[in-house]
Amino acid sequence: MKTPRAERLVDMTRYLMERPRTLVPLTFFANRFSSAKSSISEDLTILKKTLKERGVGLLETIPGAAGGAKFYPYILEREADEFVNDMLKQVNDETRVLPGGYVYLSDLLGQPAILRQVGRIIATEYLDMDIQAVMTAATKGVPMAAAVAAQLNVPFVIVRSGENKVTEGPTVSVNYLTGSSKHVEKMELSRRSLPTGLNILIVDDFMKAGGTINGMKTLAKEFDSHVKGVAVFAEGRARQRQVDDFTSLLHVDTNLDSGEVIKVQIGNYKENIFRGRENRSVRN
Amino acid sequence: MKTPRAERLVDMTRYLMERPRTLVPLTFFANRFSSAKSSISEDLTILKKTLKERGVGLLETIPGAAGGAKFYPYILEREADEFVNDMLKQVNDETRVLPGGYVYLSDLLGQPAILRQVGRIIATEYLDMDIQAVMTAATKGVPMAAAVAAQLNVPFVIVRSGENKVTEGPTVSVNYLTGSSKHVEKMELSRRSLPTGLNILIVDDFMKAGGTINGMKTLAKEFDSHVKGVAVFAEGRARQRQVDDFTSLLHVDTNLDSGEVIKVQIGNYKENIFRGRENRSVRN
Repeated sequence: MKTPRAERLVDMTRYLMERPRTLVPLTFFANRFSSAKSSISEDLTILKKTLKERGVGLLETIPGAAGGAKFYPYILEREADEFVNDMLKQVNDETRVLPGGYVYLSDLLGQPAILRQVGRIIATEYLDMDIQAVMTAATKGVPMAAAVAAQLNVPFVIVRSGENKVTEGPTVSVNYLTGSSKHVEKMELSRRSLPTGLNILIVDDFMKAGGTINGMKTLAKEFDSHVKGVAVFAEGRARQRQVDDFTSLLHVDTNLDSGEVIKVQIGNYKENIFRGRENRSVRN
Repeated sequence: MKTPRAERLVDMTRYLMERPRTLVPLTFFANRFSSAKSSISEDLTILKKTLKERGVGLLETIPGAAGGAKFYPYILEREADEFVNDMLKQVNDETRVLPGGYVYLSDLLGQPAILRQVGRIIATEYLDMDIQAVMTAATKGVPMAAAVAAQLNVPFVIVRSGENKVTEGPTVSVNYLTGSSKHVEKMELSRRSLPTGLNILIVDDFMKAGGTINGMKTLAKEFDSHVKGVAVFAEGRARQRQVDDFTSLLHVDTNLDSGEVIKVQIGNYKENIFRGRENRSVRN
């Protein structure tokens, strides 16, 4: 029996939202709902219009009998700004300052609704790019990496640093220079967790001088990966930065010496995501 | 201008799915779509029917002018079985066996689609329970904890073990006995990451004797938390188990001595989630 349009729309919305950047063929929906492909095409037109009007994402529709639909989640600048300004207010709290210029962020990056918005913002930057995996550093980068990976619908891999009795099997390791204290450290990634030759995006919660991120770039080379970008929730203050090209939602200045002074501004996401290059898919 | 029903349904589906277990008032949707509450009520009836028929979740509708809707994601036993059997085949691979009876799982628990299904299964067990936070152990438990927390729409907190130079501010720590090797270890949780007195769910990727999970239970007590359950992706083989009451998707037997022998069965999730107690919300 043919499924009524109202029910088709509810199910198609859910189905496509759960599978970002995946082509779902017209024939799949036609069979699922015992409906004509022409009806499914009309449904997709309604979905596309609504998702665009509400600023949720781009539904790319591929016409023809072999066609289908692919959902690319994005966020509009206005919603991103609202979210980042809310984060700014929450981070701008002297009690978050930790020794060494670090900032306590784990409460925020442990909330699903916040992580979803962070994921949507970063996914918007890579709307037109084929990112194949997300890389992050244990442990605090993992929630954000998982959230970005969910919106891009790609796997994420976790790099471990320091001495670990981690049970991951054979690993590839590199040495890197911590940016702030100029120590040599070691980080490693399980050999089987990342296929070689992928386009990857590096994600972390916080970046000061960028030593960890630089280390991940070196490690990525060992896997013949192509690092297409770097995204952090917050950039901190650094005397000298090892990484130039990155996107941050927040910029956090703390007093490196006496602690307990904090000044938070928005990061560079507006230029990088909504200005830098023509992000046509979001604009039109 | 009134938003047509078709567009309302698409947007309401998305909006509710992104906010599990949150009451969205009728008036919110009525204003958003410039539509009468009676029309919104009819929309919700369609949503409820479709989400149930497709095995996606329960849309609880609260009638009356002050009413609204709350979406509780769940999974049906049939879909859970299909998923777990697929996992079983993928885990049942001798090359996954690591020294000490551990099993390599990070590739699976780094895939958004897999994590979503794991989250839905565990959320189904706690459909009728008010879980307020998820607790996990760094690092490998984090992706699964984030996925479960997303379906329950509650924050998750990350416990660190061993010697850490972690930048998290003041912490509470406990000592615990590792199950397998009978060493005394230390684990800690940032004081400000978890309010006291919450109902919590403990989540981890892999459990052997249960030492880490037992440690988390002890730590939870220090925060006056009420541990309402324990969920793991896979339980391994253990000579003596410290934890009795837990839910596992897979049961993995490996040869503790010579390695490279693996036998995977389904875990106890069927009894615990779909048999044990009357899970009325899913059944009716």
